Amino acid sequence: MSFTNFRPPVGSRPGTLAIPEGSPPPEIHLVVWSPDAAEDRRVEDLAELERPLPEGSFAWVDVRGLGDEAVLWEVSRIFGIPPLALEDAVNVPQRAKVQEHPGHLQVIARLPTLEEDGAIQTPQVCFMIGPRHLITFQERYFGFFDAVRQRLRDGLGPMRKKGPDYLAYALIDTLIDHYYPVVEALSDELTTLEEDALAADDPDTLTRIHLVRRQVAVLRRIGHPQRETIGQLARSPLPHVGDDVRTYLRDTDNHIAQIMELGDSLREIAVGLTEVFMTQVSHRTNEIMKVLTLMASIFIPLTFMAGIYGMNFEYMPELHVRYAYPLLIITMFVVGIGMLVYFRHRGWIGRRRRDR
Amino acid sequence: MSFTNFRPPVGSRPGTLAIPEGSPPPEIHLVVWSPDAAEDRRVEDLAELERPLPEGSFAWVDVRGLGDEAVLWEVSRIFGIPPLALEDAVNVPQRAKVQEHPGHLQVIARLPTLEEDGAIQTPQVCFMIGPRHLITFQERYFGFFDAVRQRLRDGLGPMRKKGPDYLAYALIDTLIDHYYPVVEALSDELTTLEEDALAADDPDTLTRIHLVRRQVAVLRRIGHPQRETIGQLARSPLPHVGDDVRTYLRDTDNHIAQIMELGDSLREIAVGLTEVFMTQVSHRTNEIMKVLTLMASIFIPLTFMAGIYGMNFEYMPELHVRYAYPLLIITMFVVGIGMLVYFRHRGWIGRRRRDR
Amino acid sequence: MSFTNFRPPVGSRPGTLAIPEGSPPPEIHLVVWSPDAAEDRRVEDLAELERPLPEGSFAWVDVRGLGDEAVLWEVSRIFGIPPLALEDAVNVPQRAKVQEHPGHLQVIARLPTLEEDGAIQTPQVCFMIGPRHLITFQERYFGFFDAVRQRLRDGLGPMRKKGPDYLAYALIDTLIDHYYPVVEALSDELTTLEEDALAADDPDTLTRIHLVRRQVAVLRRIGHPQRETIGQLARSPLPHVGDDVRTYLRDTDNHIAQIMELGDSLREIAVGLTEVFMTQVSHRTNEIMKVLTLMASIFIPLTFMAGIYGMNFEYMPELHVRYAYPLLIITMFVVGIGMLVYFRHRGWIGRRRRDR
Amino acid sequence: MSFTNFRPPVGSRPGTLAIPEGSPPPEIHLVVWSPDAAEDRRVEDLAELERPLPEGSFAWVDVRGLGDEAVLWEVSRIFGIPPLALEDAVNVPQRAKVQEHPGHLQVIARLPTLEEDGAIQTPQVCFMIGPRHLITFQERYFGFFDAVRQRLRDGLGPMRKKGPDYLAYALIDTLIDHYYPVVEALSDELTTLEEDALAADDPDTLTRIHLVRRQVAVLRRIGHPQRETIGQLARSPLPHVGDDVRTYLRDTDNHIAQIMELGDSLREIAVGLTEVFMTQVSHRTNEIMKVLTLMASIFIPLTFMAGIYGMNFEYMPELHVRYAYPLLIITMFVVGIGMLVYFRHRGWIGRRRRDR
Amino acid sequence: MSFTNFRPPVGSRPGTLAIPEGSPPPEIHLVVWSPDAAEDRRVEDLAELERPLPEGSFAWVDVRGLGDEAVLWEVSRIFGIPPLALEDAVNVPQRAKVQEHPGHLQVIARLPTLEEDGAIQTPQVCFMIGPRHLITFQERYFGFFDAVRQRLRDGLGPMRKKGPDYLAYALIDTLIDHYYPVVEALSDELTTLEEDALAADDPDTLTRIHLVRRQVAVLRRIGHPQRETIGQLARSPLPHVGDDVRTYLRDTDNHIAQIMELGDSLREIAVGLTEVFMTQVSHRTNEIMKVLTLMASIFIPLTFMAGIYGMNFEYMPELHVRYAYPLLIITMFVVGIGMLVYFRHRGWIGRRRRDR
Repeated sequence: MSFTNFRPPVGSRPGTLAIPEGSPPPEIHLVVWSPDAAEDRRVEDLAELERPLPEGSFAWVDVRGLGDEAVLWEVSRIFGIPPLALEDAVNVPQRAKVQEHPGHLQVIARLPTLEEDGAIQTPQVCFMIGPRHLITFQERYFGFFDAVRQRLRDGLGPMRKKGPDYLAYALIDTLIDHYYPVVEALSDELTTLEEDALAADDPDTLTRIHLVRRQVAVLRRIGHPQRETIGQLARSPLPHVGDDVRTYLRDTDNHIAQIMELGDSLREIAVGLTEVFMTQVSHRTNEIMKVLTLMASIFIPLTFMAGIYGMNFEYMPELHVRYAYPLLIITMFVVGIGMLVYFRHRGWIGRRRRDR
Repeated sequence: MSFTNFRPPVGSRPGTLAIPEGSPPPEIHLVVWSPDAAEDRRVEDLAELERPLPEGSFAWVDVRGLGDEAVLWEVSRIFGIPPLALEDAVNVPQRAKVQEHPGHLQVIARLPTLEEDGAIQTPQVCFMIGPRHLITFQERYFGFFDAVRQRLRDGLGPMRKKGPDYLAYALIDTLIDHYYPVVEALSDELTTLEEDALAADDPDTLTRIHLVRRQVAVLRRIGHPQRETIGQLARSPLPHVGDDVRTYLRDTDNHIAQIMELGDSLREIAVGLTEVFMTQVSHRTNEIMKVLTLMASIFIPLTFMAGIYGMNFEYMPELHVRYAYPLLIITMFVVGIGMLVYFRHRGWIGRRRRDR
Repeated sequence: MSFTNFRPPVGSRPGTLAIPEGSPPPEIHLVVWSPDAAEDRRVEDLAELERPLPEGSFAWVDVRGLGDEAVLWEVSRIFGIPPLALEDAVNVPQRAKVQEHPGHLQVIARLPTLEEDGAIQTPQVCFMIGPRHLITFQERYFGFFDAVRQRLRDGLGPMRKKGPDYLAYALIDTLIDHYYPVVEALSDELTTLEEDALAADDPDTLTRIHLVRRQVAVLRRIGHPQRETIGQLARSPLPHVGDDVRTYLRDTDNHIAQIMELGDSLREIAVGLTEVFMTQVSHRTNEIMKVLTLMASIFIPLTFMAGIYGMNFEYMPELHVRYAYPLLIITMFVVGIGMLVYFRHRGWIGRRRRDR
Repeated sequence: MSFTNFRPPVGSRPGTLAIPEGSPPPEIHLVVWSPDAAEDRRVEDLAELERPLPEGSFAWVDVRGLGDEAVLWEVSRIFGIPPLALEDAVNVPQRAKVQEHPGHLQVIARLPTLEEDGAIQTPQVCFMIGPRHLITFQERYFGFFDAVRQRLRDGLGPMRKKGPDYLAYALIDTLIDHYYPVVEALSDELTTLEEDALAADDPDTLTRIHLVRRQVAVLRRIGHPQRETIGQLARSPLPHVGDDVRTYLRDTDNHIAQIMELGDSLREIAVGLTEVFMTQVSHRTNEIMKVLTLMASIFIPLTFMAGIYGMNFEYMPELHVRYAYPLLIITMFVVGIGMLVYFRHRGWIGRRRRDR
Repeated sequence: MSFTNFRPPVGSRPGTLAIPEGSPPPEIHLVVWSPDAAEDRRVEDLAELERPLPEGSFAWVDVRGLGDEAVLWEVSRIFGIPPLALEDAVNVPQRAKVQEHPGHLQVIARLPTLEEDGAIQTPQVCFMIGPRHLITFQERYFGFFDAVRQRLRDGLGPMRKKGPDYLAYALIDTLIDHYYPVVEALSDELTTLEEDALAADDPDTLTRIHLVRRQVAVLRRIGHPQRETIGQLARSPLPHVGDDVRTYLRDTDNHIAQIMELGDSLREIAVGLTEVFMTQVSHRTNEIMKVLTLMASIFIPLTFMAGIYGMNFEYMPELHVRYAYPLLIITMFVVGIGMLVYFRHRGWIGRRRRDR
């Protein structure tokens, strides 16, 4: 549940950067493409970014890591990113959103990654879509975008023929696709938990169901504003996003809608599993109670009878009767059988009702 | 819960097909109809599809099975289906939706089928409604559409006199009708489960209630976007769908609304059944506890008394009193009866409160 | 939960009638009224319906029972009812709705009736409002409309001076009034159940609460679309319904809104009752456990002590001590009292905490 | 839960009055005010109401009690109140609403009063706002409006300078203020119940929580339409209500919104308390079970051992061993201590886990 | 839950002030700023406020404490604040809202502060935004605004160059930032509670979970109208708020949205924890029951056997058999082992099912 919040101190002025703790120093990759070619290189010197773009070319500036404030301010100066926009790009976690700025359309997106210890990390990516360039700020490098970069380099599909808006779409679509493995992992875990909940003999089951519930809560919490954001991109006319790209985004919108509906299902099933586990635990207690009641109810009166004739009174005529002992044993037997029959009649032993 | 997702690898370019595993190779059926006649045949050679339609005739191209990418691309080329549309038709599962494409209106629909093992399958059908033809892509052949095909062949009703939009309506209406048997089966199962939950002696009851809850969750998950889709078709003016057909679709819209309301009721009842089962299990534990308490509370003190006089102390004057034994027996009797009366007074045995 | 659905076989063409099983053959009553007079008679020959209405007169054709397809088709032919509208009138159950047809405004309404066995029946009434006539199709004859017919015959109130729209309003208002007794019956049952749930000693209580929950679910399921329908009638300008009648319908709209809010309350209270019953059952188990624990915890150690001195070892010096027996009895007494004091201290007996 | 409904018999014509049972005969108070003076008197003869109002004066006709149909009809005739409006004023309970009538704006409001027996009564007040007069119909006299009347008489504030709309606002605001004490009383009761629920030793706690839940349900049921109504008054331009008065009504709107949010909180807390009580009851059962298990598990085996050597077999060599008795006692002691240690290790006694 | 409401007596006229109990006497601070300078001083004499502002300067009047009605009326007279607005500023608690008044835009905001005893206080701040001045009314002095005052004095950022609307934004943003520590504290408490709930051996856990639920309920109750308010400020064009400031407010809007989503998550997790605790308590009862059942079921029959041969009948032939005693001991052993095997087979001891 704990969430890390790198907001600057309360009351500080807008435009203050709060670098996320542990974020590596920025590594900047530049892809310049035109319909015919694409060039991909690491930027060592920020001055490279100031060189004018060749006619008919577009640029993708991928900033990986946010660990150096000076570099970030420099990049934002070169491309004319307003301070408020840079603040939102850097001060994670932000809520997913679309915001218009002069010269750029800013899209903040977050995606879930399932860590080995079961925690869900939700790294943030910020897209600044300009008329001829796209700038992405990644909290740290996750390799999400390598497949898209490859497609751009290889010139497959329409990507090179289109501008930064299409590239932004392709990256956002990739990012949304990363929700699927998380949903699938949670779904698989729930399937496993279902059997365990019905067996109800492993006390860890509850802990694990609770963990999944928390994971699903995180997924829904970040997914909900994400869906809003993509719906907005897909439906409202916004600067720097062409009509054709909006058609593609409607597809992405359907994917995130589908993911959120799966998230709702997961939540409902996880809540149901808690109930199943609770009921099953009660049911097993019930089963055990039955045995205890059976044993105790039968033997306690019999033991009492035996206790009677274990007393040492001087005058107990029965003790001297010839067949008293076997008669008592028979009586005990009858009482025991009688109670068994009564319990069976009440449906406490056997499967009386099921036989109907 | 497990859901199969045949989406192409993350980051692949839009328009990539991911043939669902196990989908049979496409079998294409062509129906060409005019107000006077209808001809229905299996297409062996895709070239047949390229022949121009006779004046005043319409065509229904039914693609059953998606197992051959080349065939699908060829069909889409012949009818001018955009790659993104074909991707949505093939890459199951998609969320139900309506999407305009140049030359076609695409409708994605999913329907539930209850398998023998209790799983709900949700095969997908894609409709491409053009001005003079309708193309349907079925994940595999389920025979859903045979009755409509028969009506078209027999010329009953207004079907032959109308265009592809009416045919699409008739097929969609048929498809929505397939929700009813699933709802009815779940409703019947819940009726059975109700008795079992109130009997509360079969540990499988809980498993079965949970299964129904999951089935209802799946039904609602696919039905919700389906309802949206049909509402959109019935109310918004869309290309290739006539006003008269929209009137018919309003009827279908009412059916899916009714189904979804039944789904909500089913869900509520299933949740209620879990509670009923839990309460009943607790109640039965309570009943059993009462017997145990009764037996133990009565006999434990009596056994203790017997134990006292079973001790072997040398100096126990009572042991030598003439009527000590019968007196003790009477005392025990009085104590036992006294406790029974007390328990009855507390309402733990008998039906004291009900008699009021 | 089981619901009967008389829809025609899947895939049949629109306009197919599915007569509800057990629906009696139609009995047609005709009321012809003008401001001055009203004539009410049973129609034996359908040809009567074809006679032209006198100038300034209006007609109400009440079709009771749907058991003869030919008659229904004939009526619909005479008044120009489209097949799709007739289908909706006959193929019960439909969702409540308002639908415009050429020449008629169709209103489908359903009302709840509480049967003796606790089931809620939801018979359907279809109103076809024309410019000079009103046609009603009742699934079977329930006598709902007799009071309105009487008012029409007696010429009380403004009814005779108004047209078919006012009559339709009066009938719909009557129909909505029939929701009240059902809500009241459920409310009364819940009041009774409250006491039973708090007593928690009747195992049937749970079954009865569950029944009410199901009844309330049915009520809400049919009431929700009914409210939508009446709201639509009261607020949107529709053909064949005058502005003055819309004012009256707003009143009906308030009634159904009030009913639905009562339905929501009933649902919430019924859910609460389940919890009350569960808690009370647990609480009583707790009470019983306390007694068991008390008895067992006190007497089990004492019995053990007695068992010690019941052993037959040759060398047990205490057995020969003069006052060992009374000393042991005193010890036992002290131990027993000590445990009672401890239990009281823990708050397990008496009402320690309440005295604070 | 039981609600009284004084609607006229089903099927009766609109405009029929159903006097609420027990409503006292109407007592009519008339206040005539102008900016300079206010005159307040009881109306003995209805003819007084027909006298024309002096120029620049306004009138408030306060009808307290609805117990005489003739008087009500006469009042409605004098002021031109339509029958449907009078019906809504008299036939309680109505849902809170705003309705335009020719010459009047009708506002129906209900307020909660907490009776001594814990029931919530919801008396109804109907306001008929005309251009120069305000008529109020109160089910019975509660004294709600006395403070406002006093202000009018004393000429404090802007009240005398304004018309009937401002007076209506002042009365409605007073009425909404009467929600606060009910919310506060319920809130206080919940605070008390919280302690009781955590103590979990008073079986009445559950009954009381359930009562509060029902009271909160009633509060929310009447408050919800009330909020709608006041929002409508405050935001939509309606006849007979000036723009300046609408500004004041926005304040009232905020109050009822705040009340409804408190109502939602109360509901959530009450639901939470039920769970707390349930859990606490279970927890205490658990505590008691531990003691029982401890006692039984320790002494049952020991008693068995003692039972062994209480047997009367002729050949039991141990009985004749010199130190058998003390050895057995030591063995018993070791077994008992061993079990205590084991239970402590399992965390069943002491506070093992808490010490971590 | 208890909430303090300082509204004036019911029925009092609008514009009546109800000073919150314990509110200190007002201390007024005045900041006058222009792009070049800012002067901050405490106002000792209210006449200072009447001096005209120098050209190009703006003023911030910060009223801390509401304990003197005369001062408040005087301030409102000087700046032309309408009585209704002053009433809303003083009569706490108000619901967060935005209200237009002639010459001012009023913003009411509330923020949560977590007291040491776990209570959430929700002090209220009222902003009156005028064309050249900003007036803030604080219930008491919390020091929230000191950082902003410092920035204004130091001339950092754009603050001095902007007008009262930007200052109001900066203060509101600071105020919303004060939600974060509360959310974080609740989140941390829930993380701690999670472990305790899973250990389920501390009866206080439930009390603490319930406290967090109540705290979260308060947070959501005040946060919900706050979010509405800020959304309204950020999106609707309102007087005295510039377009540029609206852009900044959209950022604040995102923060409060994020806080509310965290609040929803907290609520869901807290509800889940109650269930976890309940289930865990049941589970532990179950574990303890198993031991009791095991001990009792094994030893009760054995003790009965021993009891049989402890009877003192004269004629019990077994007692005289040579090897009867060892044979009985062996029999007892076999019975005990048999029951252990049976219990293991039923899965009541060991981890049978988990080994699968």
